[in-house]
Amino acid sequence: MRQSLTRELANLVERGRDRQLRLAVTGLSRSGKTAFLTSLVNQLRHAGLEARLDLMPAAREGRLLGARRVSQPDLGVPRFPYDQAMEALDADPPRWPEPTRGISELRLTIRYRPARRKLLRSETAELSLDLFDYPGEWLLDLPLLGHDYLDWSLAMLAEAGEQRRVLLAEWEAAAVGLDPAAEANEAELADIAALYARSLQAAREAGFANLQPGRFLLPGDLEGAPVLQFFPLPALRDATHAELAKLPSRSIYATLSARFRHYQQHIVRPFYRDHFRRFDRQIVLVDVLGAINAGPERFEDLSRALGTLMQSFDYGKRSLLSRLFSPRIDRLAIAATKADHVTPEQHANLTALLEALLAEPLQDLRYADVPVKALSLAAIRATEAQEVTHQNQRTPALRGTTLEGEEVLMFPGEVPARLPEADFWTRQGFDFRAFRPASREGGALPHIRLDAALDWLIGDKLQ
Amino acid sequence: MRQSLTRELANLVERGRDRQLRLAVTGLSRSGKTAFLTSLVNQLRHAGLEARLDLMPAAREGRLLGARRVSQPDLGVPRFPYDQAMEALDADPPRWPEPTRGISELRLTIRYRPARRKLLRSETAELSLDLFDYPGEWLLDLPLLGHDYLDWSLAMLAEAGEQRRVLLAEWEAAAVGLDPAAEANEAELADIAALYARSLQAAREAGFANLQPGRFLLPGDLEGAPVLQFFPLPALRDATHAELAKLPSRSIYATLSARFRHYQQHIVRPFYRDHFRRFDRQIVLVDVLGAINAGPERFEDLSRALGTLMQSFDYGKRSLLSRLFSPRIDRLAIAATKADHVTPEQHANLTALLEALLAEPLQDLRYADVPVKALSLAAIRATEAQEVTHQNQRTPALRGTTLEGEEVLMFPGEVPARLPEADFWTRQGFDFRAFRPASREGGALPHIRLDAALDWLIGDKLQ
Repeated sequence: MRQSLTRELANLVERGRDRQLRLAVTGLSRSGKTAFLTSLVNQLRHAGLEARLDLMPAAREGRLLGARRVSQPDLGVPRFPYDQAMEALDADPPRWPEPTRGISELRLTIRYRPARRKLLRSETAELSLDLFDYPGEWLLDLPLLGHDYLDWSLAMLAEAGEQRRVLLAEWEAAAVGLDPAAEANEAELADIAALYARSLQAAREAGFANLQPGRFLLPGDLEGAPVLQFFPLPALRDATHAELAKLPSRSIYATLSARFRHYQQHIVRPFYRDHFRRFDRQIVLVDVLGAINAGPERFEDLSRALGTLMQSFDYGKRSLLSRLFSPRIDRLAIAATKADHVTPEQHANLTALLEALLAEPLQDLRYADVPVKALSLAAIRATEAQEVTHQNQRTPALRGTTLEGEEVLMFPGEVPARLPEADFWTRQGFDFRAFRPASREGGALPHIRLDAALDWLIGDKLQ
Repeated sequence: MRQSLTRELANLVERGRDRQLRLAVTGLSRSGKTAFLTSLVNQLRHAGLEARLDLMPAAREGRLLGARRVSQPDLGVPRFPYDQAMEALDADPPRWPEPTRGISELRLTIRYRPARRKLLRSETAELSLDLFDYPGEWLLDLPLLGHDYLDWSLAMLAEAGEQRRVLLAEWEAAAVGLDPAAEANEAELADIAALYARSLQAAREAGFANLQPGRFLLPGDLEGAPVLQFFPLPALRDATHAELAKLPSRSIYATLSARFRHYQQHIVRPFYRDHFRRFDRQIVLVDVLGAINAGPERFEDLSRALGTLMQSFDYGKRSLLSRLFSPRIDRLAIAATKADHVTPEQHANLTALLEALLAEPLQDLRYADVPVKALSLAAIRATEAQEVTHQNQRTPALRGTTLEGEEVLMFPGEVPARLPEADFWTRQGFDFRAFRPASREGGALPHIRLDAALDWLIGDKLQ
């Protein structure tokens, strides 16, 4: 009697210890966040039944029993729209789910059989998994916290490449004549800020990723508020802090600078303070194939954006982030998504390219002792890998349906295993096509290595 | 020398004292807030030139010199889109401006010559006028602060009239079977909440005004968040506080009740705390004519909604509001808008009807010693008043262009000076038409008695 009570108590304590995990999913726009989170929830709900999760020991051993959606703890955060996403995927013809805007959340209770407690195999335990989805663009704002308005202006002005400059031309023509010392004209600043926001919008549509300030792209309720109406001031190229500090509060410089500070304090900080620092695990999704498709300037731009984004996970002792918010993410995954858009023998190259793209941030993270894993995956597999015989040679191919509804059998090309050099771009050996999701008859969503990602992110909590 | 210095100093002090005024404009949706604020800014900018502001002594005496837009102090509040509104009014054909969503703000600096300082007539002074525009629906949420979830549920269930019930039918069918003690199913509650929000939406489109919770109609960034997913629980009709308090935290009752409290604390309170309590003056716009047009149940509903809305201005010592936020509004105007939609001899009746509609709240306000004035006005006059001779009798008429572009000459009917009795509704003597704004050649916007409203709201600060 006494012994069974003691054991019962020990179980309770053990369950209590690992009872909760907060897992965040991010990535730049179009990296596949919504598909990833939808499939993740779908696999866990079908675990123990139709889901194929062989790369996840808890599932392979039959210990993963399933998951149930329960009420989320943060009442003010939109719920991740899982049902709407599944509706789109189950439509005829199937559609990709609508992308989410801003942050969203979903809580699952996962039921599993602990592995260690062999004697009591029939006992089950529960893990409460809070899932979060937020735009990677928000992480691009982190460096803003370490800059003042002058530094930020100079950094932005220095960074733009040739193609970005074309998109910025209209804004630049309007902004270049602004005298930092002149009195601010509210309506004029609003107009020039609108041009700046439009240039960011256009850059995103043209495939650029390194876009600051991130909230200009998704203003939400702040549409039209002065806090979203600042921009780099070209005339600051020749200015010094000392001169600028003397300018009156109604000057253009002081006005824009005050808005910049408000953005730091009331937009960037609250995200890190209220959300980011509470995440336990994080996966960052990257659309590497899309960037290769888009050419060298955009690929370079993605690389810079990812470098910036990854700073949010570098908890070296001296990092700005650690000083400000003491975040606690203890495990990180980086995934190249849409692996189903290339043939299977290219997957290793895809992972290698992702690692090459992130070489520097990955070194920093490993130095800072943050466990991190890079992989390639398809959260929802839209194609079938096949082999075709061409001139007596068997070559790999993909069968799928394009977004326009055309059924195709194709070889999209080879993925370079290293950062592409100049001649790669002139060869143009890559033909990336977007596929629509495949029709299916209920059951779990098909995927590639989502189970590997899941195991890395939550597997240790299911022991 | 010394005397002039002293006088200079006195001037400075006097200017300092009255330098700032925060004026808020509200009203239920479609009451004409955007038109009012646009015209107000337009008149002040044209003051001293083309604006006709004869009912405003400062303007009549030539002391009102004009106004300039300057940077607003609240960087996180959207700017009132004055330029876009003027663009719509100046289009060919002219359009009514897009309604604003949520709160917006605009700061004017008004330049005027003080009246009292006769000796120094050439001196000018400045008044900084902060204008705010927010949905009257937000004020309908005030009573929520004084209720708990049980009380609120019962009040909502008791209130709905026959036509509202029809709109609520689908929601009620889904909600009536919910057992407060059963475990909450997240997805089911979200679905039923969506039905409730849709019924509110439908009620608004059908002309109802008394809609709670107000934020369900304009969710903004909170779209999909659990805090906007509660509703009255029909089964609570037979419940007691004591029984309900015992229900577990996962029960339907406890879940909805927690969301209700979150709504109180994180949505209703912040508006009163961060904005409302800082307003100095307030004008409430009411579309009385629209409500008469819509029939008895909706007119009754508007009357109830206005009663609720006006509670926000009743600063009797024992009021909930005074205890919570100590607001400081010291002058209030209530205006029946769209007076240009009836012939001029009906304007007195329109004002009288407004006073009758608000009789009780007005009595409370006067008892609480809040100076309040009721009037009728047209912020932007869209019609011309004329007289036509019919069967040898001269009768008043309106000439205007309908929204569809048809030019008409008509007599819209008589406005009752008292609350309409049953037989008024059967006679149906009223034919309210919507007109589009008139084309114009620059200059100030035409209006009816906007100057009277302005004088009541800011005139004393221009002495």
